[in-house]
Amino acid sequence: MALGKIEHMGIAVKDLGEAEIRYTQLLGTAPYKREEVESEGVITLFFRAGDNKIELLQATRPDSAIARFVEKKGEGLHHIAYDVQDIEAEMERLRNEGFTILNETPKPGADNKMICFVHPKDTHGVLTELCMERK
Amino acid sequence: MALGKIEHMGIAVKDLGEAEIRYTQLLGTAPYKREEVESEGVITLFFRAGDNKIELLQATRPDSAIARFVEKKGEGLHHIAYDVQDIEAEMERLRNEGFTILNETPKPGADNKMICFVHPKDTHGVLTELCMERK
Repeated sequence: MALGKIEHMGIAVKDLGEAEIRYTQLLGTAPYKREEVESEGVITLFFRAGDNKIELLQATRPDSAIARFVEKKGEGLHHIAYDVQDIEAEMERLRNEGFTILNETPKPGADNKMICFVHPKDTHGVLTELCMERK
Repeated sequence: MALGKIEHMGIAVKDLGEAEIRYTQLLGTAPYKREEVESEGVITLFFRAGDNKIELLQATRPDSAIARFVEKKGEGLHHIAYDVQDIEAEMERLRNEGFTILNETPKPGADNKMICFVHPKDTHGVLTELCMERK
């Protein structure tokens, strides 16, 4: 088993409106989806870059992980999400390799995905998401 | 014109040997290339993740950009590199959109690429690389 392609890169921003303009210019394409994930306290905006996606994230409340990240580290790269075919099997494989998975079972994420996160202490400081298309 | 897929994600690490073990476990695949880029003061290690690549970077001297990054921010996500078909045309397009390009002309990068960087102040804190296969 192995992780698949980069499903998306998550980028934390302060102002989604400003970031939308900038990333539309940078990528040369407009976003295809805007979606609020109430449980995570974020609004997300998705762009395509070839077969990959860029996810801009803005916090909707001060206790959201994105708000804390921006306060501590500033705007920028927040997480890397890999595509997987069988998220439960990959979670089991990684647990057996000694990785700390931050949620017990897969949870719903943006863009019709089931997701989990791997602790950055086990991945040289990189918050890592596994991401499976929801059936 | 538009940027293409994510060619690779650059991750800054302190110890490439430890990171090689961790990322081989995480991704479920061994690296396919190790390459020193003397001009940038880095050793790089490349993994495949589907059609994308993960580039681990370790500094080879204290004045390299990666050494300064790790000292300031710790290990973690360092830059995002997009595949482009015509790097000079994309540099021109982005300059016209008001982006600051960090090098005047494309320069040789790792893995047989010509590259340039866009200043993170223009991309919400994300060091952004354009990356074209060298002819």
